[in-house]
Amino acid sequence: MLFDKTTIRLLPCACSVLLSTGATLSHAQEPVATVDEPRHVILIIGDGMDDQQITIARNYLEGAAGRLSLDHMPLRGTSQILTIENKVGGKPVYVADSANTATTMASGVITSRGRIATTAGDNQAIPTIVEMAEAAGYKTGLVSTASVTDATPASFAAHISVRLCENPEKMLDITVKDVYLGHCLGETKSQGGPGSISEQLANSDLDVILGGGTKHFAMAAEGGTESVVDVAKGNGFQLVTNPGELASANTEHRLLGLFSEDTMPVRLQGENGREAESPEPSLLNYLHRYLGEVTLPEPMTCEPNPAFEGMPTLKQMTDSALVHLSHNNQRGFFLMIESASIDKQSHERKPCGSIGEVEQLNEALDSALAFAAQNPRTLILVTADHAQAAQLVPNESLFAEFPIPIYTPGKLARIITPEESILAVNYATNSFVYEEHTGANVPVFSNQEGLGIVPPFIQQSEIFEISRNYLKLD
Amino acid sequence: MLFDKTTIRLLPCACSVLLSTGATLSHAQEPVATVDEPRHVILIIGDGMDDQQITIARNYLEGAAGRLSLDHMPLRGTSQILTIENKVGGKPVYVADSANTATTMASGVITSRGRIATTAGDNQAIPTIVEMAEAAGYKTGLVSTASVTDATPASFAAHISVRLCENPEKMLDITVKDVYLGHCLGETKSQGGPGSISEQLANSDLDVILGGGTKHFAMAAEGGTESVVDVAKGNGFQLVTNPGELASANTEHRLLGLFSEDTMPVRLQGENGREAESPEPSLLNYLHRYLGEVTLPEPMTCEPNPAFEGMPTLKQMTDSALVHLSHNNQRGFFLMIESASIDKQSHERKPCGSIGEVEQLNEALDSALAFAAQNPRTLILVTADHAQAAQLVPNESLFAEFPIPIYTPGKLARIITPEESILAVNYATNSFVYEEHTGANVPVFSNQEGLGIVPPFIQQSEIFEISRNYLKLD
Repeated sequence: MLFDKTTIRLLPCACSVLLSTGATLSHAQEPVATVDEPRHVILIIGDGMDDQQITIARNYLEGAAGRLSLDHMPLRGTSQILTIENKVGGKPVYVADSANTATTMASGVITSRGRIATTAGDNQAIPTIVEMAEAAGYKTGLVSTASVTDATPASFAAHISVRLCENPEKMLDITVKDVYLGHCLGETKSQGGPGSISEQLANSDLDVILGGGTKHFAMAAEGGTESVVDVAKGNGFQLVTNPGELASANTEHRLLGLFSEDTMPVRLQGENGREAESPEPSLLNYLHRYLGEVTLPEPMTCEPNPAFEGMPTLKQMTDSALVHLSHNNQRGFFLMIESASIDKQSHERKPCGSIGEVEQLNEALDSALAFAAQNPRTLILVTADHAQAAQLVPNESLFAEFPIPIYTPGKLARIITPEESILAVNYATNSFVYEEHTGANVPVFSNQEGLGIVPPFIQQSEIFEISRNYLKLD
Repeated sequence: MLFDKTTIRLLPCACSVLLSTGATLSHAQEPVATVDEPRHVILIIGDGMDDQQITIARNYLEGAAGRLSLDHMPLRGTSQILTIENKVGGKPVYVADSANTATTMASGVITSRGRIATTAGDNQAIPTIVEMAEAAGYKTGLVSTASVTDATPASFAAHISVRLCENPEKMLDITVKDVYLGHCLGETKSQGGPGSISEQLANSDLDVILGGGTKHFAMAAEGGTESVVDVAKGNGFQLVTNPGELASANTEHRLLGLFSEDTMPVRLQGENGREAESPEPSLLNYLHRYLGEVTLPEPMTCEPNPAFEGMPTLKQMTDSALVHLSHNNQRGFFLMIESASIDKQSHERKPCGSIGEVEQLNEALDSALAFAAQNPRTLILVTADHAQAAQLVPNESLFAEFPIPIYTPGKLARIITPEESILAVNYATNSFVYEEHTGANVPVFSNQEGLGIVPPFIQQSEIFEISRNYLKLD
C-alpha cells in the first residue's frame, strides 16, 4: 500500500467531509483574547514517544522518582491513533506509521501508511494546518532532527503518495538496501504533479525549515540544472549549515537550515556504539530451554555520540525558529518541532540514542515554555505520533527463583543508570534490521493555554482541530 | 528477594516517615462537603492495564475509533511506579510486581517485589488505607477476579514478606510447579507473626471480600482443626459461593464471597482455547533469516470461555459490594475492585482473556459511576499497578515490501475483530511459561470528584495519599 502511483489531484475544499473522527469538541472553550494579539501554536512531536520510551528516558535522565519537563505539564491526556487501508473507505489498520499519523495531525484526515498529506485510495492532496495558517497570514515553521523531507515534517507542507519520494531522483526509482520499492512517476511536475518532497519544501511558503537532509536538496530539481537548494535560495530562503550560521542568521529572511546529509546524528549512543544484543544461551539450553544457562549482554553506560559534535541541538534550532517566527510578527505562527530519532533509534534497537532524543525534546519544550511565558497566547501541544518497539523489562526476571535460564527471544540492552541500577530494554517485534511500531495510544500534553480545549481523551485528528480553532482558521 | 524469612515486626505509627514519594500535593484542594455527609472512595485497579492493553481491548470491544467507559472519564493522567531492592534504602528496581505496587497504593510506602504491606529489608508491617479507614469508622471492601488472597487485594488488608504465603500450608512450604520456592515459617502465628493471608483476611475487619480462592480457605487454620472459612464465619462473615447467593445475601452481615478454587475463570478465550503461538519459519529460513518463508498463526476470533459460566461478573460483585457497603452507612466506605486477569492472561499470552477482563473492568466502572451519580461524595480512581508484556504490533509488517520473511521471535496472536480487521498481539519478554511485566508508567483516571485533587502526573503512592485525604484520615 506504500506505492500508489495514481496521479495526485488537488482537493481544494473537501476537508471537512474527511474529518472522520466522530469526536466532538463541544467542551472546547475559546480563550478570551485581545482581537489583535498574536496567537501561536507550538506542536512538539516525539516520534515514537510512548510511555515506555518516556519511562526509560526518565529513569536514565532524572532517576526512577524524577520528573522530565513533560511531567510538569498541567495537562496530560491520551491520543487515539487511527489508520486505514489504502482505499476509499478502507478498514482500520491497527498500527500506524509516521506518515499517516503526521498527515492526521497536520490535516485532521485519517489516511493509510506511507502517505504524505494525501487521501487513502484516491490520492487527493489534503490541505494542512501549515497551508491554512499561511493563507491566514501566520508565519510557519518546521523543525526536525530527521531530514526535513522525512514523513513527519513533510506531511505538514507537502503532498505525495509515497513518503520515500523525498527528492527528484527518488521520484523515478526508490531503491533501499538494494531492494526496489517503487517510484512516484505519476506525481512528477512533468505529469502535472507536485514533484518530490524537497522540491515542494523549496517552493513552499514556510518561513523556517530546520533539520537534516542536505542530500535531498543537492541534486538538480526536475526539468532543469539548478539544484533544489538553489531553487530554495531563489525563492528567498537563506541557507545555514552549522550552529554558528544558525545563531547569526538574518531574521529578515526566510530560513532553511540543513545540518547533515540525512537524519541528524543523535546525542547519545551505547558504550562503544553498542546496541541491544541477543542473549547467548549455552549449548545445553539450545537442546532444551529448561537446561543449561544463558549469558546476557554485559551492562553498559550511555556515552556522547562523537558524530553529534558540531550539530545544533533541537533546543538551539527551536530557539532560532522562535526568534525568526516572532520577529516583526503581529499575527502569530504555527511551529512544528519533531524529535525524530526516539523512533529511529528504537527501530535500530539503540536505547541510548532514544534516551538522548527524549532529552532533546524536553529541552526544546523548555524553550517553548519560556517563549510562552513571554507570549501568553501560545498554545503548546506535545505528543507522539505512534507507539514503538522498546519495552522496559525486568533486569532480574520475576521468575528468577525458578532454576532455569529465562531470557527474551529478542534483543536486550542493559544500561547502567546514574543511580547505579540496571535498566533493561527489550526489542522483539521482529528479527528484521528494523523493529516495528506498536499500536498503543500515546500521551498528549499541553500548557495552561490548553485548559478547556484539550480534553483528556482525543483522537489524533483533534491535534489539527484544536490548532486550527486556536488560530481561528475556521 | 521474594523469600525473605525474617520475622514480621509491627510498625504501628512510622507510616509518615516512610512516605518516600518526594511528590507534593500542594495543588490538592479539599472539596467542600457537609460535615456528616458520607464519603466514599472506589479504587479500581486493572492489573497490568497499560496503554497497550487498553488499546488492544478498545479495538476489539468498541472498534478502532470507539471509546471505553474509561475513555469518557473527565480526568486522565499517569502514574509513576516505584520499586526498590529488598533492603532498607534499597536502590531502584525498574520493573514492579503486583505485590509491591498494591502495597504502595494501599499504604503510600515503596517496597520490594513480592511483599504484602511490609517494608523492604526489615519486614515491618505497614498500616494500610483499609485499616486506617476501618479505625475511622468507614466500612471497607475488597473485590477481585483473582483469589482474594492474591497480591493486589492482600496488600490492602494483610502483611507478610512473601506474596505466595496465601494459606496455612504455604506458610510451611511454597512449591510451584515442583520447584521449592521457600516459606514463611518466621511469620506463623506460633512464631508471633500474623499467619497466612487467608487467615489474616478471615480475622480482618473487612465488611466485604469477594473473588476467587476457595482453596486457600478450605484447610485448617494454624493451630487448630477449624478451617479458615469457618474461622471467617465465626467472625461474622456470611459465605456465598454463587451469583444467586451473592444477589440475595443479607446486607446486615459481613460478606465473604468465594466463587472459584483460585483465580476466577475469565470471560473470553481464544477460538478453541488458542493462545499466542510461534510463527513457523520454513527450513530455508532456519538456515538464513533472509531466505525461505514463514507461516504466521492463523487468525482467530475470541469466544466465550465455558468455564466462566456460573461465575458472577465483576460488575455483579461490584454491585453487591456497593449495596452492602452503603447499607445503613452514614460514614462512608473504601472499596478496592481489581480486574486481575488482564495481567494473568497476559502472562499466559492469552489476549482474548485480557480483553474480556478489560471489558469487565469497564462494566464495574459503569456501576461505580452510577453509584457516584446517586452519592456525590464518591471519589472514583481507576489505575493499573504496572505495565505488561502484550504489544499491539502490525499485522502487515511496516517493511512488508522487502522480499524476506519478517516475524516476531516471540509469540503472536492474530485476532479477527468485529470490524473485520486483524489485531496482532505480540508477547516476547521471555521464553518462560509466564511473560514478564514491563516498566512503563500506567494511566490513572478519576471522576469529576477528583478535579483539583488528582494531578496529571502522580507517583503511585499518591493513590494512597489522595484516598486518605479524601476520607479525612489524617
